[in-house]
Amino acid sequence: MSTTTARAIVCSEPGADHIPGTNWKLQDISVPTELKDGELLVEMVASGICHTDLITGSLPSGMPGVQYPRIVGHEGSGYVKAVGPNVTKDVKAGDPVLLSFDYCGQCESCQRGHPAYCAAFFPMNLFGVADVFKSKDGSQGIAGKHFGHSSFASLSVVNQTTVLPAKDLVRSREELQLFAPLGCGLQTGAGAILNMAKPDKKDRVMVLGLGGVGLAAVMAAKICECEQIIAVDRVKSRIDMSKELGATHGFDTTGVEDLTAAFKEVTGGLGPTVVLDTTGFLPIVQASYDSLGSRGCFVWIGANMDPAYTLNISIGTFMTNGTRMLGCMEGDSVPHEFIPQLINYYREGKFPIEKIAKYYKAEEFKTALHESHTGESIKPIITW
Amino acid sequence: MSTTTARAIVCSEPGADHIPGTNWKLQDISVPTELKDGELLVEMVASGICHTDLITGSLPSGMPGVQYPRIVGHEGSGYVKAVGPNVTKDVKAGDPVLLSFDYCGQCESCQRGHPAYCAAFFPMNLFGVADVFKSKDGSQGIAGKHFGHSSFASLSVVNQTTVLPAKDLVRSREELQLFAPLGCGLQTGAGAILNMAKPDKKDRVMVLGLGGVGLAAVMAAKICECEQIIAVDRVKSRIDMSKELGATHGFDTTGVEDLTAAFKEVTGGLGPTVVLDTTGFLPIVQASYDSLGSRGCFVWIGANMDPAYTLNISIGTFMTNGTRMLGCMEGDSVPHEFIPQLINYYREGKFPIEKIAKYYKAEEFKTALHESHTGESIKPIITW
Repeated sequence: MSTTTARAIVCSEPGADHIPGTNWKLQDISVPTELKDGELLVEMVASGICHTDLITGSLPSGMPGVQYPRIVGHEGSGYVKAVGPNVTKDVKAGDPVLLSFDYCGQCESCQRGHPAYCAAFFPMNLFGVADVFKSKDGSQGIAGKHFGHSSFASLSVVNQTTVLPAKDLVRSREELQLFAPLGCGLQTGAGAILNMAKPDKKDRVMVLGLGGVGLAAVMAAKICECEQIIAVDRVKSRIDMSKELGATHGFDTTGVEDLTAAFKEVTGGLGPTVVLDTTGFLPIVQASYDSLGSRGCFVWIGANMDPAYTLNISIGTFMTNGTRMLGCMEGDSVPHEFIPQLINYYREGKFPIEKIAKYYKAEEFKTALHESHTGESIKPIITW
Repeated sequence: MSTTTARAIVCSEPGADHIPGTNWKLQDISVPTELKDGELLVEMVASGICHTDLITGSLPSGMPGVQYPRIVGHEGSGYVKAVGPNVTKDVKAGDPVLLSFDYCGQCESCQRGHPAYCAAFFPMNLFGVADVFKSKDGSQGIAGKHFGHSSFASLSVVNQTTVLPAKDLVRSREELQLFAPLGCGLQTGAGAILNMAKPDKKDRVMVLGLGGVGLAAVMAAKICECEQIIAVDRVKSRIDMSKELGATHGFDTTGVEDLTAAFKEVTGGLGPTVVLDTTGFLPIVQASYDSLGSRGCFVWIGANMDPAYTLNISIGTFMTNGTRMLGCMEGDSVPHEFIPQLINYYREGKFPIEKIAKYYKAEEFKTALHESHTGESIKPIITW
């Protein structure tokens, strides 16, 4: 089988400390150049780093779907290098593409236009596929197809389902870099607002956690011209950035004793009418839930798969308040429809993602992880 | 103050057994004929009996807002007898009216077009107002304005907010009788489907509890031409009726050990995509929640104000499944818009409420309560 060499951030079996990223290493790998049905080779230009990469790329092996060594990365952009058999997407070698999540296309949610809730979402996106790549000397298999494309490789084998042809969307290599995170984090935050909560001008939107997802939600709430956009975090620089992006109120949780009361107060006593949680941190989630105003809409984004993670909901109050609660994956986006829409907003100056993007060369990925952890970098993007 | 005499079902202080309805008695009362601002006198033609009447009309006194003697009843229809000062609704003496719930018109939910979630809903509808009526000899005050109108009186003092002018909607006294329950139970069940869950043809709708609310939901799901309409109860006659009204599957819970598995099975393994609970009975609610399909929408209607009434929700699954959960009051109806729409459906044969209505003379109200309890009567309507 013919192969070529590329660079990739490879996750090896994590150490006992399980500190995310300490088990990641930039190294040369062997990439197959003979493609299977529906596959493309993509020369990556940029890869956004998302919190989900950190989690899934450092999980202890032995858990279902966890295998090492593996390559993660699921916000990618690049140029098509080769097109495999039976690819039906309108792409040819040299075309720019944006990459998003994978889905089966056959299940009920896919058929009804909601691929983010694909019945096979977990295995297709998080488990990866064994032996897509090999170590440089060919002695060891390396798993790939994280979210169907494993963007943390300079050259990757990609399922066509994850590909958004971008020759009519992107004007330059620089834009292609900037748009890399649209395929997951940014569409998730923006979609939670624009596709799910759908607030109007009278809404008071509270966003918990101001990473890339949260700030995309702030920008989307600004697009909806919401009366109040309350941006909640504990990192001052992120709160400052949220105001630049349209938040009407910055809210620092540091040292606040009664969060429920404070959330009510900042909304004039009525409570927020939309809450988006991107933190998965129960105390702040419970406090914001308890502060919800009449007909308040709570959107769950913050991943926390701990079965013990349950909210204390009085059903009677839920009913009489007309509370709405929505589980959010990928902002319920259909990438080939929603990402072009977001790019339009970007061109109109309404979705200024350049303000939250920070670029790192591939060999600087540990700096990117560190600065993402400290809050210094909001949306770290690796360039290849 | 000038008064006149009328008949009413009056709730007195309940006995220690608190069996609903045993403290109700048909008696003569004294009704004021001098009206205050915004009030009307309505000669009642019919009054639907709703489960909420049974609960609120038999609560132990000492609870907030509970007072005796009182007159309940909140599904009413009749003819205007007199119009008080500053009534702005387009009605005059002799006009037919339908009565629904009361709301403040000033709070955020009212201002945004969702009066069913009025901030003052509980005090305005459930607490009632002291001394609206008096005992026949004038010696004792009787509370009225249950839901702003206390329809369990042959002549009642009514807030104009609860009044839907019906001269262009109703063709006869018989229709006015039949339409009495539209103002609460029927609009609640139909609105939960048509205004809230908004299913399409591909949805599998499961309705828990086949009283008036549940069967109105079945009829509404039929209007939406949903692929499956699964009607769940333990009374055979109600299940039979649901099939006549459009249910594709009748489901008798009697003796079913694993309800979750059975709910999945009846939906081809995928689970329902919409569940409406009208029972407030936790085991069946939990089982149906656990059976929800991808992007399943759970609508809470069944009242259960016990703070211990909480559902066991794994937040991670809620998120990845894209679950939607909605708290429902009055089907999120705006009565003056939604009730005419339901009457149109009735005229088209799509909302055949005559099939579930059963009439009782006022003096037969105990029979109505009994037959409602046994399931023999689905929507009991008292005629005056």
